[in-house]
Amino acid sequence: MPQLRKDPVTKRWVILLHEQKKLPADFKIEHAPKQTNKCPFCPGNENMTPVELMSYRSENTLPNEPGWQVRVIPNRFPALQIEGDLDRMGLGVYDMMNGVGAHEVIIESPNHEDGFHNYSSEQISRVLHTYVERYRDLSRDRRFRYILVFKNNGSAAGASLDHPHSQLIATPIIPKRVMEELEGAKTYYYYKERCVFCDIIRQELSQGERIIHENESFVAFEPFASRFPFETWIAPKDHKDCFGDIDKSEIDGLADIMQATIKKLIKTLDNPPFNFIIHTSPCGEHCTDYFHWHIEIMPRVTKIAGFEWGSGFYLNHMSPERAARFLINPNYKG
Amino acid sequence: MPQLRKDPVTKRWVILLHEQKKLPADFKIEHAPKQTNKCPFCPGNENMTPVELMSYRSENTLPNEPGWQVRVIPNRFPALQIEGDLDRMGLGVYDMMNGVGAHEVIIESPNHEDGFHNYSSEQISRVLHTYVERYRDLSRDRRFRYILVFKNNGSAAGASLDHPHSQLIATPIIPKRVMEELEGAKTYYYYKERCVFCDIIRQELSQGERIIHENESFVAFEPFASRFPFETWIAPKDHKDCFGDIDKSEIDGLADIMQATIKKLIKTLDNPPFNFIIHTSPCGEHCTDYFHWHIEIMPRVTKIAGFEWGSGFYLNHMSPERAARFLINPNYKG
Repeated sequence: MPQLRKDPVTKRWVILLHEQKKLPADFKIEHAPKQTNKCPFCPGNENMTPVELMSYRSENTLPNEPGWQVRVIPNRFPALQIEGDLDRMGLGVYDMMNGVGAHEVIIESPNHEDGFHNYSSEQISRVLHTYVERYRDLSRDRRFRYILVFKNNGSAAGASLDHPHSQLIATPIIPKRVMEELEGAKTYYYYKERCVFCDIIRQELSQGERIIHENESFVAFEPFASRFPFETWIAPKDHKDCFGDIDKSEIDGLADIMQATIKKLIKTLDNPPFNFIIHTSPCGEHCTDYFHWHIEIMPRVTKIAGFEWGSGFYLNHMSPERAARFLINPNYKG
Repeated sequence: MPQLRKDPVTKRWVILLHEQKKLPADFKIEHAPKQTNKCPFCPGNENMTPVELMSYRSENTLPNEPGWQVRVIPNRFPALQIEGDLDRMGLGVYDMMNGVGAHEVIIESPNHEDGFHNYSSEQISRVLHTYVERYRDLSRDRRFRYILVFKNNGSAAGASLDHPHSQLIATPIIPKRVMEELEGAKTYYYYKERCVFCDIIRQELSQGERIIHENESFVAFEPFASRFPFETWIAPKDHKDCFGDIDKSEIDGLADIMQATIKKLIKTLDNPPFNFIIHTSPCGEHCTDYFHWHIEIMPRVTKIAGFEWGSGFYLNHMSPERAARFLINPNYKG
C-alpha cells in the first residue's frame, strides 16, 4: 500500500509509491513520448486494462469489449489504493497514514488520434457527464475528503500514454493548494460577504480585456495574475461551489466553452502540452457561501526553475491582456 | 518596469515581464540547451555582460577583465529592477505594484566546463562567501523583504546558459512558499516552544536512516516527506535563522558538505538536472526563535503533472530511506 507522509513544517502531504522498488537509473527525464506497440486504451485491447468501472457505449455491446465512446478504468499503477483503512500514525515529529483513495482513468475517445483539437462538443459532453458520474459515486465514500479531476495532455505535461485520457484521484486529505484556495476565498467572504470569484467574474466581464469566450452559463478568461503564458480559467457565471452539482444543460454549456477555448489555445500555441484541473469544494464540506468551482487550464510552454520552486512566486513573460488578444483574434500580430 | 500582480484568492504574487513583447511562437519548450557561439560568462568576454558588482580576483587584475575566480553581475534580463519605488495600487478586486528588486548572477568559476561535479571545496567556499556578501549588502535596502539565492543546473532545471552560475533575487514581498514555511515553523514553536527544524535534525541524527553526510556544523539528509526522488536538505546543526549570519568557519563546513552531497547526487543519478535553493528568514524580520535556515536540493528527474499542480500533493516513487542507501553506498543495488 502506498504511504502518505506529511512535512511537519509546511503541512504538505506526499504519496510514497515505494513498493515499485525503482532504481536511480529509472529516473531519467524522457522527452519523447513512450511508444507502445499496442495501445491498452484502444478498442480491441480492453483485456490489457483492469475491468471497466463504467462506459458510454452503443446498445447491445458488452462491458470490456469494443463499442464504447467513453470508458473508465482503475489506474493500473494507482497512486492510492481503494481498499483499506487510513491508519493514521505518528513517528516522533512526523505524521503518516496509509495511501487509501481512488485513482481512475477516463479514456475520452476510442480513437487514438482524437483530442481536444477535434472533439465534437457532444463528445466533450459525454466526457463531462462521465466526470460528474464518477465524482458523485466517489464522493459518497466517507474516507475521501477531496476528488481531483485533471488532464495531462502531452509528454511534457506528464502524460505517459498518447491515447486521449484524463484522470481522477480521490484523496483522504484535502490537498494543500485546495486548502489555500478555500482559505483565501473564506477570508475574502468574511471581509466582504461576497464570493471573491463572483467579484472577479463581474470585474472581468465589465473590463472585457481578458475574456476569451462567453456563453449563457460560463465565461473563459486569462486570470489577472496569470502564472504562465496563456493560463486560462473557465468558471460558471452563477455562484456554485461544487462541480458535482452541475446539471445537464450546464454540461452542454461547459462542453461548448471548453471546446472553443482549448481549440484556441491549441491553435495559437501550435499544439502545446497542457494540463487542466477542476477546482471544486471538498467532499461533504459546506463551502456554499464562499467557494466557486472552476477549471484552470495551464499550457506547459515554460520551464519551472529554482526561483519558482523556492518561492511560489512566478515569472511570466506574457501579460494576460496580450494573451487574450492573441487568443480571440487569429490575425493579431502583437 | 516589470509589474507585480497578486492573485486575490491565494495571495500568490506573479512578476509580469510584459515589456519584452513575446509572441506565442516564442513559447516552445526547448529540450536542448542553447548553444552560444561565444559564452558571455567566460573570461575575455566580460564586455558582453553588465558591469560587475563584485568579484574574487587575483591581485593586480582589474574589474571587468580576466583574472577572477568568482564574478557577480546584474542579470541582463532582470526579473525585477533595482531602481524605482514600489507604488502599490489597487484595481477593483486586484492588487499590484512595480517590479522593484534586484536580480544578480553569480558566475561560479571562470572555467566553462566546471561545476559541482569537480569543484574544490575552496572554490565552493569562495562562491558561498560571495552569496553571503551580496546577501548582506542587499539586505540593507529597506525596500527588500526577501533575498532568494538559488541555482538552476542543466536545461531541464531552467538554466539558459551552460557556464556554471547561480542567481540571487531580492523581492519587495515575502514569497508565498517562504511565508508558508515561516508560518508552519511559528505554529510549531507556539505549541512546543521548540524549533521544528531542530526537532527534525535531532530525530534524523538519532534514527540515522536518512542521513547522507555530516560534519561538525552541518547535516545532509533526505527529508521524511520528500516530494521528489533524491530530494536532499542541508541544515546547520545549531539553531540559526539567517543564512546571512554564517561565519567563516561555518562557510568552510558548508562548502565541505555541499561538495560531498552534490557529488553523491551527480554520481548516483548520472549528472541529473537539479535546483538548489537557500531557505532563510526574511530581511529585517525576527524569526530567531522559530526559523532555521537550510538548503533544499532538488534533482529534477521526474515530471510535474496536473495532479501535483492542482493539489500541491506530490507523488514520489523513491522513499527517502532507500534514496539515502543509494547515495551513501555506491555499491548498493537496491
